[in-house]
Amino acid sequence: MVNTDEYVVTPWEVKGNVNYDKLIQEFGTYPITDKIMNKIEKYTKNLHPLLKRKIFFSHRDLDWILKKYELGEKFFLYTGRGPSGQTHLGHLVPWMFTKYLQDTFNVDLYFQITDDEKFLSNSSFSLNKTKNFAYDNILDIIALGFDPKKTFIFLNTEYSKTLYKIAINIAKHITFSTAKSVFGFANHTNIGMSFFPALQAAPCFLPSVKENKNIPCLIPAAIDQDPYWRGIARAVAPKLGYYKPAQIHSKFMPSLSTEGKMSASDPNTAIFTTDAPEIVERKIMQSFTGGRDTIKEQRELGGTPEICPVYHYYEFLFEMNDTKLTEIYNDCRQGHLLCGDNKFNLTEKINLFLTNHQKRREKALNKVEDFILRD
Amino acid sequence: MVNTDEYVVTPWEVKGNVNYDKLIQEFGTYPITDKIMNKIEKYTKNLHPLLKRKIFFSHRDLDWILKKYELGEKFFLYTGRGPSGQTHLGHLVPWMFTKYLQDTFNVDLYFQITDDEKFLSNSSFSLNKTKNFAYDNILDIIALGFDPKKTFIFLNTEYSKTLYKIAINIAKHITFSTAKSVFGFANHTNIGMSFFPALQAAPCFLPSVKENKNIPCLIPAAIDQDPYWRGIARAVAPKLGYYKPAQIHSKFMPSLSTEGKMSASDPNTAIFTTDAPEIVERKIMQSFTGGRDTIKEQRELGGTPEICPVYHYYEFLFEMNDTKLTEIYNDCRQGHLLCGDNKFNLTEKINLFLTNHQKRREKALNKVEDFILRD
Repeated sequence: MVNTDEYVVTPWEVKGNVNYDKLIQEFGTYPITDKIMNKIEKYTKNLHPLLKRKIFFSHRDLDWILKKYELGEKFFLYTGRGPSGQTHLGHLVPWMFTKYLQDTFNVDLYFQITDDEKFLSNSSFSLNKTKNFAYDNILDIIALGFDPKKTFIFLNTEYSKTLYKIAINIAKHITFSTAKSVFGFANHTNIGMSFFPALQAAPCFLPSVKENKNIPCLIPAAIDQDPYWRGIARAVAPKLGYYKPAQIHSKFMPSLSTEGKMSASDPNTAIFTTDAPEIVERKIMQSFTGGRDTIKEQRELGGTPEICPVYHYYEFLFEMNDTKLTEIYNDCRQGHLLCGDNKFNLTEKINLFLTNHQKRREKALNKVEDFILRD
Repeated sequence: MVNTDEYVVTPWEVKGNVNYDKLIQEFGTYPITDKIMNKIEKYTKNLHPLLKRKIFFSHRDLDWILKKYELGEKFFLYTGRGPSGQTHLGHLVPWMFTKYLQDTFNVDLYFQITDDEKFLSNSSFSLNKTKNFAYDNILDIIALGFDPKKTFIFLNTEYSKTLYKIAINIAKHITFSTAKSVFGFANHTNIGMSFFPALQAAPCFLPSVKENKNIPCLIPAAIDQDPYWRGIARAVAPKLGYYKPAQIHSKFMPSLSTEGKMSASDPNTAIFTTDAPEIVERKIMQSFTGGRDTIKEQRELGGTPEICPVYHYYEFLFEMNDTKLTEIYNDCRQGHLLCGDNKFNLTEKINLFLTNHQKRREKALNKVEDFILRD
């Protein structure tokens, strides 16, 4: 757990203005170097903007994964979702990047839905509620266009026969002390939550167990999930005779308020994938920005895109053309672009994206069974 | 956990000469009264010797279960086995009594095989090893003649999809502190073991979950398992809206050495169901007894059946005729019966029993699938 005056980053809480360079040092991960980016570029025509823009900025063993790949040893991807509410745009960032990795390297993806964990950690959630969130979130995953032949989505409660066996193999090597120090568990933590890290680590080894051979694993995820892999999966892997899972970490999609990541718990600071155009418009228009108090000041002094959620929305998802993104940046800095206009343009882009996404989401309803793994 | 100078009784350790009257007080259970025995007698021609002889001696809510039964509300039975080795005669005692309860009350039996727990608690066990023990033990269960239509046997690792969902509902209400105080867990306990109590409690509610109504549960088991039900299942039941499981507790089949219960960990102090006649003979002939050092002394002073495993074997399993058992007792006390003769007679009885059991065990090989529940 990282806890300074400025920010907190744990698997359950992200608060404050995260200093990502410092976080790399604190977590002991590695920055994604130009050398690694060049290697990835070999396999794709254009390097993904999320990499170029260092939104995926940190890793563990990514260089090793690429070396294995070059030697003909294919890896698989593993990512996940905790179904505690509706999907918002911040969730889509690592998922879209995961799809890019799947397409580029032509690899399998295991997608874990941790309905058990959300049930166990929220006193007011029933298993039925987390299941409903799960199947709602799955529509968004499918809508992104993952390949059903190579994408395996599962709810922990529906795939637990397979997962429980792997999880107890992991759990046998993890003491309560370790779980405590990695996750900040206390004696009042319920025994389901303290066992859960073993279930979250299980998919790292699932294809290896299934195919009875050692298969490298790459986990794309926001960096707050790192403790799971560092403290549990990577610690236990050698004891089980498997490779340590590699990771590639993203930054957090900013909230529409002044600080922190987009969060479903404050609906006004997040745009949900099912939001209607007028809702999106209202949320964006009410958003915090990096602009000045008056139009006059904005024209004279310019805004601060670095702290502006509206600018970051372009950067993360809505302006994939680098030249155009630089234009937005410069126009804001130099006072040519006013917040109102910038918000208006962003609203149009988001609503265009969401209209299409919502259509694909509707169609996904009939495709769920093509993706789901059950025991 | 009970720990005095004289004995220890926990789910994982039974040591010393157990004072059962004291244990009832320490555990806070209730002795089985004549009133309860009379009630049970109403449903069976002869009261089972294990009840008459107070080998099943203690209970929780047994009177309530009988009242429910009289009102037409059927209960189900739940018992289990930790597959850490071969089956010995001590294991058969509660199972045979469970069969008597099933036959008498015509009720379903859920039989849990905790292969996960034995794997998690023994550093040298693989899941394959505990699974092999499990299927070996199941042959002994089936050989006792349980009704396949009303008996459901399951390994936790093979039925975990069903069990995990119920277990997390239980786990949500159990803190690590509670598990610690009930079972003596420590910070170095692995997170699989500390979650396991939720899995052991799950079958108490399994039929109720399946049939979506509240069904009373009666657990026949040796008294060392009481903490599971008292501290976990009975504590959580009201929170889940289910009845607290009732229990009926047995004493421990004594070891062939001086103290403690029969244990598979010292093979010379236990008779396994697969032992050959000459092995049984050797073990019984080498057994500790309540006899005197010399034949002369034995004839003059008599023996002490109370501390004699040979006598207790008759009492638990091999002399169901009360008159004959009293004869053995008196003949020993008065010095008419010498230990050698007594051992010889017992060996004959055990070998007769085992010859038949081993035949039924052989036949059980083809019946396993009639009993097993899998997800």
